[in-house]
Amino acid sequence: MRSTIISLTVLVGLTPLVQGQSPLYTLHNPNSARDSAIIRAIYDEALTHGEAHENLRQLTKDIGHRLSGSQSAFDAMHWGQIVLEGYGADSVWIMPVMVPSWTRGTVANANAIIDGVAQPLHVTALGGSIGTPINPPLRGKVVEVKSFDQLSELPKEEVRGRLVLFNRPMDPVLINTGAAYGGAVNQRGRGAVAAAEAGAVGALVRSMTHALDTLPHTGAMYYQEGIDSVPSAAISTVDASWLANQLKEHPDLEVALEMNCQAFPDVEQGNVIGEWRGSELPNEIITIGGHLDSWDIGEGAHDDGAGIVHTLEVLRILKAIDYTPRRTLRFVLFINEENGNRGGRKYAAAAKEDHATSNKRYVAALESDAGGFVPRGFRIDAGDQATEMIRSWKPLFDPYNIHRFRRGGAGVDISPLKALNPRPVMMGLSPDGQRYFDFHHSAQDVFENVHKRELELGAATFTAAVFLLDQYVPSSGKVD
Amino acid sequence: MRSTIISLTVLVGLTPLVQGQSPLYTLHNPNSARDSAIIRAIYDEALTHGEAHENLRQLTKDIGHRLSGSQSAFDAMHWGQIVLEGYGADSVWIMPVMVPSWTRGTVANANAIIDGVAQPLHVTALGGSIGTPINPPLRGKVVEVKSFDQLSELPKEEVRGRLVLFNRPMDPVLINTGAAYGGAVNQRGRGAVAAAEAGAVGALVRSMTHALDTLPHTGAMYYQEGIDSVPSAAISTVDASWLANQLKEHPDLEVALEMNCQAFPDVEQGNVIGEWRGSELPNEIITIGGHLDSWDIGEGAHDDGAGIVHTLEVLRILKAIDYTPRRTLRFVLFINEENGNRGGRKYAAAAKEDHATSNKRYVAALESDAGGFVPRGFRIDAGDQATEMIRSWKPLFDPYNIHRFRRGGAGVDISPLKALNPRPVMMGLSPDGQRYFDFHHSAQDVFENVHKRELELGAATFTAAVFLLDQYVPSSGKVD
Repeated sequence: MRSTIISLTVLVGLTPLVQGQSPLYTLHNPNSARDSAIIRAIYDEALTHGEAHENLRQLTKDIGHRLSGSQSAFDAMHWGQIVLEGYGADSVWIMPVMVPSWTRGTVANANAIIDGVAQPLHVTALGGSIGTPINPPLRGKVVEVKSFDQLSELPKEEVRGRLVLFNRPMDPVLINTGAAYGGAVNQRGRGAVAAAEAGAVGALVRSMTHALDTLPHTGAMYYQEGIDSVPSAAISTVDASWLANQLKEHPDLEVALEMNCQAFPDVEQGNVIGEWRGSELPNEIITIGGHLDSWDIGEGAHDDGAGIVHTLEVLRILKAIDYTPRRTLRFVLFINEENGNRGGRKYAAAAKEDHATSNKRYVAALESDAGGFVPRGFRIDAGDQATEMIRSWKPLFDPYNIHRFRRGGAGVDISPLKALNPRPVMMGLSPDGQRYFDFHHSAQDVFENVHKRELELGAATFTAAVFLLDQYVPSSGKVD
Repeated sequence: MRSTIISLTVLVGLTPLVQGQSPLYTLHNPNSARDSAIIRAIYDEALTHGEAHENLRQLTKDIGHRLSGSQSAFDAMHWGQIVLEGYGADSVWIMPVMVPSWTRGTVANANAIIDGVAQPLHVTALGGSIGTPINPPLRGKVVEVKSFDQLSELPKEEVRGRLVLFNRPMDPVLINTGAAYGGAVNQRGRGAVAAAEAGAVGALVRSMTHALDTLPHTGAMYYQEGIDSVPSAAISTVDASWLANQLKEHPDLEVALEMNCQAFPDVEQGNVIGEWRGSELPNEIITIGGHLDSWDIGEGAHDDGAGIVHTLEVLRILKAIDYTPRRTLRFVLFINEENGNRGGRKYAAAAKEDHATSNKRYVAALESDAGGFVPRGFRIDAGDQATEMIRSWKPLFDPYNIHRFRRGGAGVDISPLKALNPRPVMMGLSPDGQRYFDFHHSAQDVFENVHKRELELGAATFTAAVFLLDQYVPSSGKVD
């Protein structure tokens, strides 16, 4: 047994494990030597015996990408069960979820045809898109817009029968790259609907990245009842900029697009769940998770292989340092975040049922779904008092360069839990985001682009938050 | 003229440019809209029209690595002059510095010989090492140690005639990788001396990196008057660990080492200096720099190409936003940081002369020499009051995720300026360090491993610090 464990055992006696019952949210005692020592032990364990990197290698290299409905998503579910069992979860089960089964197919070609010469473009289907005619392809002139407003103001005849190039870039001056993504991504989600409404026959969407490169970045798009479905493809930033420039000189250029993506009937897969029962308040559940599914280009390494191995590492690390959880820790490898969030919604529906019919209470939820980069802090989705409590932990994290305690969405998978009353306190791991969109939903989201030590620091930071919530989140609702 | 400049011009009128003369160090007025606006303009300029990345490409790809005394170091000096002139420095000159001219040569081979079978090891000469005999090579048994104490306690006969493998790794649990480097690097610097003192014939030093890989990392070593000079080589972490394991089973294994590195007579090169004269206090000098020289494997991209292009970008950005400096800003591309710091020492000697013989005063100095990674903050090397003043700027940096304002060395090149009285206030840019030692002094320190946006954020952060020091550092000594 290592010395960190021994010293922990000694320190645990120094201060009471449970702080006073009122007020509801207790600010942290900055002199808690016990908490500092446990957090130090968590980081030491992650940095010296961490298994996050090896787990990520297995998930991305042995299994590969994991689109909902695919065989590899089944393989990943099986793998997740085995790891959770191996790490000593008290019980492991699958919560069945019907997921979409869209497939990219084998063809995604686009060419710009200028003065009779075809020039290939880097494109890929957006997730959920219908296919195009094949041989001959879908072909039309192109109109470039930067916004839906601009599109809707164009004369119908300038759009009808054309392909719309949605070409608004992510704003480079926003320091928060997630905000820059948020400011551009409606083109991807709603582009096909807006294009069809305006009479166009298809959409090309500038890839969601700051980088100027030739990688198309896929992602979810949707259709709308009553609006024609037209094909929608991601086009690399280099190609989008080139095409826009060509349009100035050659307004009559055409693009030919061929994609054989298609949707198949839904498939039963599921959330993989492992539970470690609490010692004091077993009916109070802390949900910890990421999503097991990924897009089908690249390997889903940052998105969200990192979140999965962070989640598994919480269990492994807390066992390794001999921690005894007060609450029940529930580790959830969610399915289908990328194109439906059906795993997250099913989990929340089950939680609501628990609330109504049992004494189970969902007191907190944490998600890691922002990459495996060096951690910066947390996004907090909670009421004012809970937020203040979490911010009172800041000095505990200062030695680890964790400084960002901002309010914001904690994660797509856990977000449906907000419908519970009382709602759980939610935290999302917030790694540095400057590189995230270089890789996100692209062929470059691979194991090699995740840094071992940064991944380990993320796992430790995530684990420390679980430990503190387990200690300090107040009970919500009746407890047996 | 862009809108940011116009809005600046408006805002500059709102608050007085110079704060009160006493107390000496003025804490920042948190409501200074002018300062916030100027810093926002600095970041916007860096992120939308930044030239740091293209400058780094030229320095690393067109010129290459830049060891002191080499032709490419001359090329880099010439390039630096041209860029400083092109960016509108009032005057640009070379301050001559005699630098060492050590060369790695063409041969750096090592083999472990186990039961008569030679197994190649990844090694490279440490900078300054003497060569070995060639054909036949230097050959000897190996003794592994983790510390100088351990070496000095070994019986003489267990060391005499052998090669010492210094194999203490960087401590992975230290969050500050620089501290982990500091805890291991004496093996590289003093390893050859310690080995020779104990009667050994050479030293193999475990590379200074957390990564387990096959890259040898070079770096400076030294000899000591009166102690025999023996050859010293860096060995990759994978090879060092492998060799240590082999030694357990094969204590009589030998290593054969061949290196034809050698020292030539000193060469005159120099610090490249560009000056932008101050409008109010032209005799007060703020020194801003990084080092132009690099090791001769890799391309010196992070170390310290990043610091050079950060420095150049300060000038370009402040001109682009129409800033008028109060003090004289002096941009210094130092020579010979890696193996001698003669550029830094020469510059400080000249500053001392200025102090004694002219009215020039060196009020502040900033260095960027910790890589092109996403910025975290600053290392502050200054007295208590100046440190408090700099920390009062923290809210200005909060929107840019700049949070670390720790005391510590601000940079090797500017460190000799501490001998001035009064000494300048010093700041060093502090980027995230988790990846730094993956690349540091190795063949992987290349342009491709520097991230454009992270480099730009570093340039903006560095520039903002220059702006604030120009505004708020107090005058030291008599001013005309």
